[in-house]
Amino acid sequence: MNPLDNIRVVLVGTLYTGNVGSACRAMANMGLHNLVLAAPNLQNDWEEGERLAVHATDILKNRRETATFEEAVADCVAVVGTTARSGLYRQHVRTPRESADEILALAAEGPVAIVFGREDKGLTNEEIAQCTHLVRIPVDEGYTSINLSQAVLITAYELFTAKGDYQMPHEKAPPAPQAQKMQLMKNWAEMLETIGFMESVQREHFMQGFHRVFSRGVFTKDDAALMLGVARQAIWAKNHG
Amino acid sequence: MNPLDNIRVVLVGTLYTGNVGSACRAMANMGLHNLVLAAPNLQNDWEEGERLAVHATDILKNRRETATFEEAVADCVAVVGTTARSGLYRQHVRTPRESADEILALAAEGPVAIVFGREDKGLTNEEIAQCTHLVRIPVDEGYTSINLSQAVLITAYELFTAKGDYQMPHEKAPPAPQAQKMQLMKNWAEMLETIGFMESVQREHFMQGFHRVFSRGVFTKDDAALMLGVARQAIWAKNHG
Repeated sequence: MNPLDNIRVVLVGTLYTGNVGSACRAMANMGLHNLVLAAPNLQNDWEEGERLAVHATDILKNRRETATFEEAVADCVAVVGTTARSGLYRQHVRTPRESADEILALAAEGPVAIVFGREDKGLTNEEIAQCTHLVRIPVDEGYTSINLSQAVLITAYELFTAKGDYQMPHEKAPPAPQAQKMQLMKNWAEMLETIGFMESVQREHFMQGFHRVFSRGVFTKDDAALMLGVARQAIWAKNHG
Repeated sequence: MNPLDNIRVVLVGTLYTGNVGSACRAMANMGLHNLVLAAPNLQNDWEEGERLAVHATDILKNRRETATFEEAVADCVAVVGTTARSGLYRQHVRTPRESADEILALAAEGPVAIVFGREDKGLTNEEIAQCTHLVRIPVDEGYTSINLSQAVLITAYELFTAKGDYQMPHEKAPPAPQAQKMQLMKNWAEMLETIGFMESVQREHFMQGFHRVFSRGVFTKDDAALMLGVARQAIWAKNHG
């Protein structure tokens, strides 16, 4: 069971369709599919919203709209409110990253709402009071106002990365085994002397430098084969010069 | 010295001013201020860009524009390319989170460019070849195309959180000391018997339940004082009923 399928993004009192469209795209990027607009207060038509959703229009089309916030979250096992404001009733906030594992665990039990407020006013105290968890996105104190769809993105991103499914591409070539690296060093040194880059007496000094160059991070079999090819070709070129 | 001041966001061949404006806002949210447009290829005027920058117009106004990618990064000590595409020359990618500490360390040494490509085509192989590091944002395989400004946001967010400066608000009330909690439990039990909620013989059974309720996460002095007030008032109400 994929807990992300139980994550419901709830946008309360949204003003601009463009933000909804961008939020759909962000959700698609991060494996979320359930969108609810609670008491939307849209000031413009859906042309901008559809344009900014790009290929995530299925999320947009499949959205639910409810007249109230309560209806949007009534069946949820947890209601995670997002807030930028401080205040007496918003002190018990955590970061999205700190909350992510718990939210995913709850999502295995039933629908979990992640709630975002109005572009200009956020969530009201009454809506905050209905939240079981509060999160605040870390942001520079010089500019704390985050665009709605960007807040959706960051929260979704933390859930997606906490789930830990994505596969980063592996390099196809494995790391070069020690013997191959030492063979390369030997051939490299021979090449450097042959082309006159260095004299025998300087060998250890310069080879220390090349050991260092070839030790920056992972050095793969392909890397070693490439450098070996250079050494061979340089020797050939000198002998046929 | 703040390493974020040495982070330079470089947008290559950008098509839409709206993306630049949104990127400025994302940068401001995450404490970055240096923007360079390398060989911009803008298809619309700055009206949308300025509108989407909202209050981050200073970053927009202070941007540099260069004719080529090379000029934008010439003085950098590291050039971090972002890529969504796979391919033979893009295998050695890491996530932004994995790279963040190293990028910040390099930024203490000099300017570090974080490079984003064209909305439709990303970065070319030639540009990738000039990068000292490559990052790829984790994304659902069903929808790998991330909006440019959202890619800027996530990368900036990982740098900002890696720097670890932001202060989450602390609850003003400290956790309730053990003695206060036990006093509350005693008063609570007394209240429950007084109002007829339970009989003495059931006391231990029900009190286990309330111990559990008051043990969900941190229970502060304010929380304890609140519940104590309820207990006192309920007893008063019964006695004056």
